[in-house]
Amino acid sequence: MIDIVTPNHTHAEIAIAAAEAGKHIITEKPLALNVEEAEQMYDAVKKNNVTHMVCYSYRFTPAVQYAKQLISEGRIGKVYHFRANYLQDFIMDPQFPLVWRLKKEVSGSGALGDIGAHSIDLARFLIGEFKEIVSMKETFIKERPLGEMTGGLSATSNTNSTLGKVTVDDAVAFLARFQNGALGTFEATRFAGGNRNKNKFEINGEKGSIRWDMENMNNIEVYFSDDEPGLQGFRLINCTEDIHPYANAYWPAGHIIGYEHTFIHLIHEFLSGIANKYQPSPNFEDGLINQKILKAIEQSSESKKWVDV
Amino acid sequence: MIDIVTPNHTHAEIAIAAAEAGKHIITEKPLALNVEEAEQMYDAVKKNNVTHMVCYSYRFTPAVQYAKQLISEGRIGKVYHFRANYLQDFIMDPQFPLVWRLKKEVSGSGALGDIGAHSIDLARFLIGEFKEIVSMKETFIKERPLGEMTGGLSATSNTNSTLGKVTVDDAVAFLARFQNGALGTFEATRFAGGNRNKNKFEINGEKGSIRWDMENMNNIEVYFSDDEPGLQGFRLINCTEDIHPYANAYWPAGHIIGYEHTFIHLIHEFLSGIANKYQPSPNFEDGLINQKILKAIEQSSESKKWVDV
Amino acid sequence: MIDIVTPNHTHAEIAIAAAEAGKHIITEKPLALNVEEAEQMYDAVKKNNVTHMVCYSYRFTPAVQYAKQLISEGRIGKVYHFRANYLQDFIMDPQFPLVWRLKKEVSGSGALGDIGAHSIDLARFLIGEFKEIVSMKETFIKERPLGEMTGGLSATSNTNSTLGKVTVDDAVAFLARFQNGALGTFEATRFAGGNRNKNKFEINGEKGSIRWDMENMNNIEVYFSDDEPGLQGFRLINCTEDIHPYANAYWPAGHIIGYEHTFIHLIHEFLSGIANKYQPSPNFEDGLINQKILKAIEQSSESKKWVDV
Amino acid sequence: MIDIVTPNHTHAEIAIAAAEAGKHIITEKPLALNVEEAEQMYDAVKKNNVTHMVCYSYRFTPAVQYAKQLISEGRIGKVYHFRANYLQDFIMDPQFPLVWRLKKEVSGSGALGDIGAHSIDLARFLIGEFKEIVSMKETFIKERPLGEMTGGLSATSNTNSTLGKVTVDDAVAFLARFQNGALGTFEATRFAGGNRNKNKFEINGEKGSIRWDMENMNNIEVYFSDDEPGLQGFRLINCTEDIHPYANAYWPAGHIIGYEHTFIHLIHEFLSGIANKYQPSPNFEDGLINQKILKAIEQSSESKKWVDV
Repeated sequence: MIDIVTPNHTHAEIAIAAAEAGKHIITEKPLALNVEEAEQMYDAVKKNNVTHMVCYSYRFTPAVQYAKQLISEGRIGKVYHFRANYLQDFIMDPQFPLVWRLKKEVSGSGALGDIGAHSIDLARFLIGEFKEIVSMKETFIKERPLGEMTGGLSATSNTNSTLGKVTVDDAVAFLARFQNGALGTFEATRFAGGNRNKNKFEINGEKGSIRWDMENMNNIEVYFSDDEPGLQGFRLINCTEDIHPYANAYWPAGHIIGYEHTFIHLIHEFLSGIANKYQPSPNFEDGLINQKILKAIEQSSESKKWVDV
Repeated sequence: MIDIVTPNHTHAEIAIAAAEAGKHIITEKPLALNVEEAEQMYDAVKKNNVTHMVCYSYRFTPAVQYAKQLISEGRIGKVYHFRANYLQDFIMDPQFPLVWRLKKEVSGSGALGDIGAHSIDLARFLIGEFKEIVSMKETFIKERPLGEMTGGLSATSNTNSTLGKVTVDDAVAFLARFQNGALGTFEATRFAGGNRNKNKFEINGEKGSIRWDMENMNNIEVYFSDDEPGLQGFRLINCTEDIHPYANAYWPAGHIIGYEHTFIHLIHEFLSGIANKYQPSPNFEDGLINQKILKAIEQSSESKKWVDV
Repeated sequence: MIDIVTPNHTHAEIAIAAAEAGKHIITEKPLALNVEEAEQMYDAVKKNNVTHMVCYSYRFTPAVQYAKQLISEGRIGKVYHFRANYLQDFIMDPQFPLVWRLKKEVSGSGALGDIGAHSIDLARFLIGEFKEIVSMKETFIKERPLGEMTGGLSATSNTNSTLGKVTVDDAVAFLARFQNGALGTFEATRFAGGNRNKNKFEINGEKGSIRWDMENMNNIEVYFSDDEPGLQGFRLINCTEDIHPYANAYWPAGHIIGYEHTFIHLIHEFLSGIANKYQPSPNFEDGLINQKILKAIEQSSESKKWVDV
Repeated sequence: MIDIVTPNHTHAEIAIAAAEAGKHIITEKPLALNVEEAEQMYDAVKKNNVTHMVCYSYRFTPAVQYAKQLISEGRIGKVYHFRANYLQDFIMDPQFPLVWRLKKEVSGSGALGDIGAHSIDLARFLIGEFKEIVSMKETFIKERPLGEMTGGLSATSNTNSTLGKVTVDDAVAFLARFQNGALGTFEATRFAGGNRNKNKFEINGEKGSIRWDMENMNNIEVYFSDDEPGLQGFRLINCTEDIHPYANAYWPAGHIIGYEHTFIHLIHEFLSGIANKYQPSPNFEDGLINQKILKAIEQSSESKKWVDV
């Protein structure tokens, strides 16, 4: 099996070669640089009949899985609203260099594909398919010092005084209608100071609401409108009890897990799929659909019109 | 002086008569049913040289005033993002009757003018003027039992089995660009279960961020990116110290004030304006601009295009 | 009627004179300088048959009244734990002068009688009578500049360089057993930086738990152990709905009230008592019992032994 | 090396044998059943010159390490208060069986040694040595069904109808004075419904305050009294930045770690000690001192007097 963790513009070549070699594949997200590549990749894994996943790992947070379960059981009824913010702040310093994530030819897009794509995946997982969207995007810092960094996202700025053009978005926001009638509002930005990795969503349904925030990823807040009058309020639930998804693999209730476990659970699902001969999700099909939504968002931000997904 | 607290379709007639009688006027928001009425009202108060305010009272929360002060002093630098939600849930029950707030001819609009207008006012107060918007709106419950209620918003549902058409929005969301380049995302809905009056905003600037939520209206959260590394985080500030706006009129720090004080402060400002011969804000001009934005939002939701404000 | 809001050493004389003149009386807390005075005051109001209350106003927060209601209805079952902190920080500056609250002959005690007495009253209201206690107290700043201040608690420090001795406690903590078997832990301090008025408690019973914090006084957190597995968690309830105590006298749900309303409710109760010929609580008997507990705490901190209340 | 994770009454025998065999040793906490055993164990590791640690793992949370660093650097000045609660609820059901943790001959004590010992360790780590304490303890459910469980803490109750006596405390609370003059209040209970593993502390010093809660273990709240007036408030800091202890071994800021990492860090420290020839902490000496404090607490709860530590 192959796990592709290289920059986005390399995913297609590696994945297609791996599929043709009969390897099962996990790839980092977004699936590809663009829809065309994504389609070729999806064709390749189907043709070669390999197991495939795309690493939208936040699905595998126990709290998110539990949200999915509650929604699937009808506990919040028909969904009216999905509201997602994915807020970061790691490139706010204008001296932060022009790393690969800021170059369209390597990354495909900026905040959109890097973090907005996660919100899109969560929306598809929890709410359903998109119908149409309208968007805006912005690049606040239009030029940055040249130079890559070896130290990861948090590396200190370099001192290269030559500037290059930032060719991706710093921030994107979009409105969406889902096929089931729910309304969605989304925002993904790398310019929200104080938000290191604020990946959050809120869902409002006819019978209840759910809120989640990655910075306290073990918690979920749940409201039921049929709770006894006077005692209605969001319940703060630490999803570390045996009854919560994945939690019985771990320590006693109240002892939290961290970010890496989202990957552990994803890989567990991947291996289960291989062992038990089913195709897990999110897979290349999910990755392709996600890529089409990314494309629609880019189109809308240029045409300034609603775009069908 | 006249304080107009009757339904929206009566504001214009009363206000114009009051202005012509030389009375100073406060009116509930939105200023009017539509832009035409709002213009007539603004003309009337100018012509008759009376003091006028429109009751966008949330501006007068000490925490919001303090946010304004921080922004004006440049403490968060250039603003990148304004993100506002105004979430309520009081009409989610389909048996909730067709009260005046759900009839366009009486209220002008639904969640948009009732609560979205507050977010718009806060945005104008804190960030600046709007440039353009794109929106969507929805009416989830399209017919409701006829009948008014005397018991206020929280009255129990009536049992009238005759249904009438809801002619206003239950929910609206819009994206905005401000004239200063900031991006805005807005959502106003009466279908967000568990949110009795969740009027909140977040502001991200180049040097810091600010968050506020009416349900804990005395608090404000402030982040500065130039805080010492390791010690950067949102500060939870209870705006009840003498140094905070209006707070020195009250009890010692940590002893909070409530909703009614936003009105007390507004009226204080109104009376100060009369006494000291200046025209306070928000006034009929603010009300008119707000009404134009409401109109643009309605237009965009129909045309499905961006609309200049 | 007479409302006594002068320093503690004046309560007895005024109250006794008022009672003898047949006046109904509200007095600030603690009731008196010491148990002896408190007994005389209680004797006076009984003998003269006047209505009397002592201003332990936090009882009258809707959220606290609601907690009382839940406990009385058996919703959390037998109580195991009561845990109260009353944390302030207004005298932490060593230059804060030797105001009357820091002189035993005027105030009776320090943090103990000023804020600890509030926690004691809440404990008696919510849990029941005390059985025994053990305590410690401390005066961290033993001498301070002489001089009163006119500006209230938050006045800036004076510059008097002559020092006088602080004769009351800066902080006190005590353990308690209640007559019903519950355990209590209490801490009252004016040296808890960042806590302007953190008057909070937590209650754990066999079937549920309740948490409250004055800094967000409209909220209460409630946990039920018989909530559905997986969905157990503290519910954050904004006690502003019609069903909550006193709330239907105010504005719609989610629009909070402030500190002064605790007094409004207390005075409402006082006037109801006068009008309807019943003796409201907390009254001088409550004030006397509270004073006996304060005395026991002082004794224990000196004897270093458990003291029966 | 030997890692002892068996019940408490087996630690001494295993550890002494391991020391005599020249093995480096980590043992679960508390170190032993009682002070006598703890002294023998400490003697054994000293005599045999092996590296030794006792698994008070919460010290190794990055947020706690960071708190230590701030205190050591004098950032909050002289400490006035340490306030610790360790609240759990896993044995509240009277049908929960008489597992080994509820038998004094196997566990030594109940909530005291199991969770209170953690708070004591954190207090010693962060504040310093204890001077004297006074305590109370309680066993709310005095008899329980016989029978062990294989499923860990969260196993469902058994149905054995024969009852046996619970010989340890369900809850303990104590007041403490530290040698440096700080006051401590502690509570450890397994009867605090809704608190799965609420291991929390608050520290108040002359220049600032720190708060931490294991249920959101990556966060720390820090207050500085010399922050600019108006902007004073607890900062909510997610200790996941490179500058925070241990954090640079992990993923980007805002992506949290979980409970197991406290052990990973402890073992890292243990191995560093072996490799670099120093004796890490917390070690058997810390375990012995902790055991002496546990003993003093037990003595005080019986004598009802303050006990020197």
